[in-house]
Amino acid sequence: MRNISEDTITQAVLASISGCKDDRLRTIMTSLVQHLHAFTRDVKLTEDEWFKAIQFLTNVGHITDDKRQEFILLSDTLGLSMLVTTQNNKKPATCTESTVFGPFFVEGAPEYHNGDDISNGAKGAPCFVRGRVTDMAGQPVAHAQLDVWQSDDEGFYDVQTQSGTGEAHEHRARGRLRTLEDGSFHFRSILAVAYPIPHDGPVGQMLEALGRHPWRPAHLHFMIEAPGYERLITHVFRDGDQYLDSDAVFGVRSTLIAEWVRHDAGAAPDGTQMNTPFYTLDYDFVLNPETVTEVAHA
Amino acid sequence: MRNISEDTITQAVLASISGCKDDRLRTIMTSLVQHLHAFTRDVKLTEDEWFKAIQFLTNVGHITDDKRQEFILLSDTLGLSMLVTTQNNKKPATCTESTVFGPFFVEGAPEYHNGDDISNGAKGAPCFVRGRVTDMAGQPVAHAQLDVWQSDDEGFYDVQTQSGTGEAHEHRARGRLRTLEDGSFHFRSILAVAYPIPHDGPVGQMLEALGRHPWRPAHLHFMIEAPGYERLITHVFRDGDQYLDSDAVFGVRSTLIAEWVRHDAGAAPDGTQMNTPFYTLDYDFVLNPETVTEVAHA
Repeated sequence: MRNISEDTITQAVLASISGCKDDRLRTIMTSLVQHLHAFTRDVKLTEDEWFKAIQFLTNVGHITDDKRQEFILLSDTLGLSMLVTTQNNKKPATCTESTVFGPFFVEGAPEYHNGDDISNGAKGAPCFVRGRVTDMAGQPVAHAQLDVWQSDDEGFYDVQTQSGTGEAHEHRARGRLRTLEDGSFHFRSILAVAYPIPHDGPVGQMLEALGRHPWRPAHLHFMIEAPGYERLITHVFRDGDQYLDSDAVFGVRSTLIAEWVRHDAGAAPDGTQMNTPFYTLDYDFVLNPETVTEVAHA
Repeated sequence: MRNISEDTITQAVLASISGCKDDRLRTIMTSLVQHLHAFTRDVKLTEDEWFKAIQFLTNVGHITDDKRQEFILLSDTLGLSMLVTTQNNKKPATCTESTVFGPFFVEGAPEYHNGDDISNGAKGAPCFVRGRVTDMAGQPVAHAQLDVWQSDDEGFYDVQTQSGTGEAHEHRARGRLRTLEDGSFHFRSILAVAYPIPHDGPVGQMLEALGRHPWRPAHLHFMIEAPGYERLITHVFRDGDQYLDSDAVFGVRSTLIAEWVRHDAGAAPDGTQMNTPFYTLDYDFVLNPETVTEVAHA
């Protein structure tokens, strides 16, 4: 370690962490250092480029706060989030696939009953969502907990447009409900629309420099949890959206695309008389049984 | 791009940047995505680990300000800074080697004359530094600009212990001077001591988790510039330091180790009568000629 050179630096770093007592951390950091150094060698990163990278990460850090998570955006736009999602959620082909979590989930969203309007004042064309949650044999999963969240018709989630947080925060177009005995659920919300990810910061500058747009195809977020099943984090994407082939965060899976059906003014599925056109979405979810880890006997 | 899976995600990301008009950026980002994804696959990074990484980077971003650059510390402690330094500063064997720049250089340090005391009140044992700057043939490089900076005897640089910045900032143990006609320089400062890098933040937590210490061996920073020569950014390390074999930022090169000679109270090299013990350091620098890039004729 007294004669560090281009040829010896990587081994010196690896040697320095060889004594790490946390096996998993040592494995992760050993691989990280190897890949980070290999990248730096492959492109022969210059000192100016290194400094630009430092400045970029500094800017990503400084724009990040309790409402904006630019590091997650960076991970999303580099396909890292989707890679982590897919490699950790391999499911049988008959189960509903996962996609990225995204940065806009909020803890503590209000609980609703089936049939409620979760938009809570968020602007958008009315939309009635229905579906069932089942196991792989088609049996209903009763009382499954559904978290739903989405943007308004301008493409903003409530957390992006409000100044309050915690109790002062007004939840709009997000909520939690439970499936009925037959595994079904239904609620009213608003039409999902395409929107750009926040692109007025360093990640937006990166996308522009790369010749990429910041748009996501219209989608509705779901997180579904029930005892005995793997937690499912996914979206339903709106068929026909122009960005399905170029989602800025690489989240689209063809099995998750569904049709939002447009209806003229008239009777909604729940009997409400609608004065304006409205939409309906029907989508069923199939949960994967939880893997039971056997407890080792000492 | 409609059917993203673990197997297709990397190619989808690469395809999305294939239209980037900046060739160099496309090359860098293509390699970065490949290595980032390969790392994620190699260790089969879990969702929890991914989220811990997001939290770690967020913490690195939030502790970084105009005085503390935790991203540079992170780069330094992972050996990335030294790799970038070494691969961009290949010099003939007779030239003085480079090492890491570090996060404590400050623009606008005061200009001094040869013989001045640059400590400006920083605490430490007195030290008289002398040397010459020459070309590879041993010819003097006159009027070369030397930037020198170091910590005080508690291991802190002036920027770490003062609240002011810019004009309000008081520069201590740092300064700029120029070589004389014969290439020589001499100044008074304080003895360099070993010190830990700032380790009360996320990088310190990382080092602790990895079983590493945060110490750097005692050193004096130099940046030397002269027309016709490559800029030299380096340190001189103090022989005998216990951390020479385990520098937290992997900066040590054996050719940069020199002896700080201790003297009892008495006459200093510049004739000053010293009431306390003092040190002397003699170190010469050899600059590499600048590569002249030929201008292409249209």
